[in-house]
Amino acid sequence: MPASADPSEPLTLIALLSGPDQPGLVARAAMWIYEHGGNILHADQHRDDTENIFFQRLEWIPPRGGDQLAQGAAFSSYAADQLGMAGRVALSIDRPRVALFVSKADHCFHDLVLRFQSGEMRGKLACVISNHDDLAEASAHYRLPFHVVPMTALNKTAAEAKQLEFLRQYNVSLVILARYMQILSDSFLGRACVPVINIHHSFLPAFAGGRPYHQAHTRGVKLIGATAHYVTAKLDEGPIIAQDVSRVSHRHNVDDMVRRGRDLEKMVLAQAVRWHLENRILIYRNKTVVFD
Amino acid sequence: MPASADPSEPLTLIALLSGPDQPGLVARAAMWIYEHGGNILHADQHRDDTENIFFQRLEWIPPRGGDQLAQGAAFSSYAADQLGMAGRVALSIDRPRVALFVSKADHCFHDLVLRFQSGEMRGKLACVISNHDDLAEASAHYRLPFHVVPMTALNKTAAEAKQLEFLRQYNVSLVILARYMQILSDSFLGRACVPVINIHHSFLPAFAGGRPYHQAHTRGVKLIGATAHYVTAKLDEGPIIAQDVSRVSHRHNVDDMVRRGRDLEKMVLAQAVRWHLENRILIYRNKTVVFD
Amino acid sequence: MPASADPSEPLTLIALLSGPDQPGLVARAAMWIYEHGGNILHADQHRDDTENIFFQRLEWIPPRGGDQLAQGAAFSSYAADQLGMAGRVALSIDRPRVALFVSKADHCFHDLVLRFQSGEMRGKLACVISNHDDLAEASAHYRLPFHVVPMTALNKTAAEAKQLEFLRQYNVSLVILARYMQILSDSFLGRACVPVINIHHSFLPAFAGGRPYHQAHTRGVKLIGATAHYVTAKLDEGPIIAQDVSRVSHRHNVDDMVRRGRDLEKMVLAQAVRWHLENRILIYRNKTVVFD
Amino acid sequence: MPASADPSEPLTLIALLSGPDQPGLVARAAMWIYEHGGNILHADQHRDDTENIFFQRLEWIPPRGGDQLAQGAAFSSYAADQLGMAGRVALSIDRPRVALFVSKADHCFHDLVLRFQSGEMRGKLACVISNHDDLAEASAHYRLPFHVVPMTALNKTAAEAKQLEFLRQYNVSLVILARYMQILSDSFLGRACVPVINIHHSFLPAFAGGRPYHQAHTRGVKLIGATAHYVTAKLDEGPIIAQDVSRVSHRHNVDDMVRRGRDLEKMVLAQAVRWHLENRILIYRNKTVVFD
Repeated sequence: MPASADPSEPLTLIALLSGPDQPGLVARAAMWIYEHGGNILHADQHRDDTENIFFQRLEWIPPRGGDQLAQGAAFSSYAADQLGMAGRVALSIDRPRVALFVSKADHCFHDLVLRFQSGEMRGKLACVISNHDDLAEASAHYRLPFHVVPMTALNKTAAEAKQLEFLRQYNVSLVILARYMQILSDSFLGRACVPVINIHHSFLPAFAGGRPYHQAHTRGVKLIGATAHYVTAKLDEGPIIAQDVSRVSHRHNVDDMVRRGRDLEKMVLAQAVRWHLENRILIYRNKTVVFD
Repeated sequence: MPASADPSEPLTLIALLSGPDQPGLVARAAMWIYEHGGNILHADQHRDDTENIFFQRLEWIPPRGGDQLAQGAAFSSYAADQLGMAGRVALSIDRPRVALFVSKADHCFHDLVLRFQSGEMRGKLACVISNHDDLAEASAHYRLPFHVVPMTALNKTAAEAKQLEFLRQYNVSLVILARYMQILSDSFLGRACVPVINIHHSFLPAFAGGRPYHQAHTRGVKLIGATAHYVTAKLDEGPIIAQDVSRVSHRHNVDDMVRRGRDLEKMVLAQAVRWHLENRILIYRNKTVVFD
Repeated sequence: MPASADPSEPLTLIALLSGPDQPGLVARAAMWIYEHGGNILHADQHRDDTENIFFQRLEWIPPRGGDQLAQGAAFSSYAADQLGMAGRVALSIDRPRVALFVSKADHCFHDLVLRFQSGEMRGKLACVISNHDDLAEASAHYRLPFHVVPMTALNKTAAEAKQLEFLRQYNVSLVILARYMQILSDSFLGRACVPVINIHHSFLPAFAGGRPYHQAHTRGVKLIGATAHYVTAKLDEGPIIAQDVSRVSHRHNVDDMVRRGRDLEKMVLAQAVRWHLENRILIYRNKTVVFD
Repeated sequence: MPASADPSEPLTLIALLSGPDQPGLVARAAMWIYEHGGNILHADQHRDDTENIFFQRLEWIPPRGGDQLAQGAAFSSYAADQLGMAGRVALSIDRPRVALFVSKADHCFHDLVLRFQSGEMRGKLACVISNHDDLAEASAHYRLPFHVVPMTALNKTAAEAKQLEFLRQYNVSLVILARYMQILSDSFLGRACVPVINIHHSFLPAFAGGRPYHQAHTRGVKLIGATAHYVTAKLDEGPIIAQDVSRVSHRHNVDDMVRRGRDLEKMVLAQAVRWHLENRILIYRNKTVVFD
């Protein structure tokens, strides 16, 4: 549902589509928009030659005075029925509601909140959910609803049910794990029905699992990394969205790596969230296509 | 003129176009190709909102058995007459003939020749031209015609006439200045009628002119760079194609910077030449659009 | 004056010295410390062969139970009198008081304050001074004294006098210009008697002066940068401390560059401030030696 | 044994030492050199706080007219006997003899040979050994002895014996695996008695083993890497010397990754070899300390 957005920003429709490759997809999709009075601003496509799949992101200005939502729906139907392409069409002024999951570490939390508040992100922070109360006061300062859902081995099912309730209550369509230190169960993921983005503090697939900076220090690598990915049932194996690295040397102990890693984590997570909210990411075969 | 190319590579047509923006350009160009039996592999576009110019790169597989050159020409006419877009259409198997201008430094020379010989570049080295004879033997080893054209303040006009003669004789359509240490005159550039790519050993516009590593060392910068650009009449001010940097510290003296800079220069110049030969670059307003 | 610091952090003395090069400097400085019961943790040195200057950073654990300040002073005298080396000796638990100068942009402000509050910086934010009141509320939230000193062409002398008064009042030993948009006069710099670190939003010396992202966009560079430097009387020409760059393309308009530049500015300024507060920087000949 | 070197280069002694940490190591080592007429140019040290090991690299100009080899040996004895530090002392003009192992890929081969021939490396290429004859002609052109030692599952023991014979015959003190596609047996490594540097075409520990670019493409990572490491009995698990990465996206297929990877491999392997030959690397606990 459209919410607050910069009024000077031109309203556009954004389609993210994928389907079996066939001749004419670029032409026919573009022609439909042209013939319905739209003016295409961006048209990106990608073809996976091995899998024979075609991916497309189209962004266009719909005709003035028309019903934009209706045009989006009509194009979506055309793409599905005539082009065999599945996907969705979003309005550029959509501001999806986002839940932030945190534990004790606050660097990604502050970084993301400040980016949302500065208008850099096309979304709206709806609530903060944590298994600890450390960030309660900071959330209050930012005027964000904050809920503690303690998590133990014994209460996990009930606690996740409580989390799911909050997702529904706040009408959330994206969950960000901003250094949230609990593993989400398959059941939670299955029932949440919204994408979940996590930041892992290593260059995956290197150093999956716990204490990646300790692992990196022990192995003696010369670069440390961070990886933002969609969460799937397999821990640290979901589709990768963004990665970056930073140079380290023997001079860096684990604490130094942790400190430098914080900057990487902030940058990489923010990048992934921004791309997601700008409707730039398609997922397939446990990989992502990012039209940046 | 088509020359030797990998026979397994699918033959494609590549159009690089630009012109005043108007609705329907994406749709109409793609539809023309579709209706003429082509299958679009890549379609990139860019719009400069300030200048209201539209840029497009289309790469497609023409119908089998047809006359590919004729289809390219027909599309070119359509784009010009119906869409108001100027540009050119190339065949992917084209291997333009390239002249390498060198002086004494040999790092970019060896790097480029090895890349051309490995098949990494969509072009054919036609000759090496130098104002010194240092690289005569190396060129002979690579079986490349090598011509010395000595250059002094007094003989510049005659020497450049000789260089131009070689460009015609070898039917060259691209000149690469691989650390060629002479400045090309306006007259040469005007009469060469082919693009000239230069590598400047700094992060332009910082440290234009001579001895950029000395300038960088004196200024105490923490990164050194290299810049590949098209050569225009204004020294070091032509459209930038590619740039990269490398970290330095107080530990690096000028010689260290020169050594590290050599690696930057090789990588950046090779990148620019590859993009040019793959028909990925459009020039406008002293800038480039690179569809990479 | 020593202030609050992590009690688990081992107390060390840190000497930053420079002087004419001569044989034996490494040995004699280290031997003095060894003979006075100190245990050297880090010993970095650099020799500028052209200028024949020797630079040294020594960090050591002084003997337990002794008077650390006295040992620092004694070493300082020894270095000056016997080795001809000028410099200073700091205690690792020193937390110099820092003034933050800001205008309207808040990204470096939030980033630095959060880093100081997380304990990442070896300093103490003493006050925020601005020519606008935009960041008054945010400063109040962070419990930082905030002072507006409006600055016009007419009142510059009086306004700077007011700023200098605040520096004295808060006993400040470092000024950070966190996107402060006024030029400090020579007179201010001369009378402030403390180092001033600025963040310039370009890769200096490229695009010095105003509106660097606009300049970068017009020139069509492929990398944008940020530079942290000590402020001197010559605008944007002071000793460079840290620089970094980020890749851009024709797809990025000026606003995109500004947004991406914000991340660069935050990282580069924080890096420079951290190095300064950890006593890692020596200045000479308008350059820096950074022992990182 | 000293061989050809730049005569203008000042002759220095370089000590690489490690041993249990104790107070006074920096002072006493430096004082020994000072008292024996040496002038220290570079003194780097590192302390591993967890393991309580001290590492040191000292480079100094010995007194004129003295016996440099004797001073190196004397310092080595002093360090062992009085400081408890093991290690070695090299002369800067040493040019160790190097064997290059290759298979069919030629990019690292050409890159390294050109760097050795340009004088960038402090070593001398003694011979090229391959399990294929593809690079015979290129080696001949470079005037490098080339030996084919075919390698099959059946003849591995005999073939490695032949390789070891060449190492002895050419008096080799470093082996470089420049994309050599055979696994060296434990027996070979044990009997070779010289360090072996390998380039692995991934960011280890990610994608160890075969076909790393295929693995990277399947996993959908956003950065590909290369790792230079010393070879140990455990495949791809030896001490890492240097690593670097390059950004990739969904647009890059496996062939593109292979091509971009070649540049990474060349740069990272050359960096590791340069550091090794400049006596900048200490190994411990399967990690490296690199004094760069």
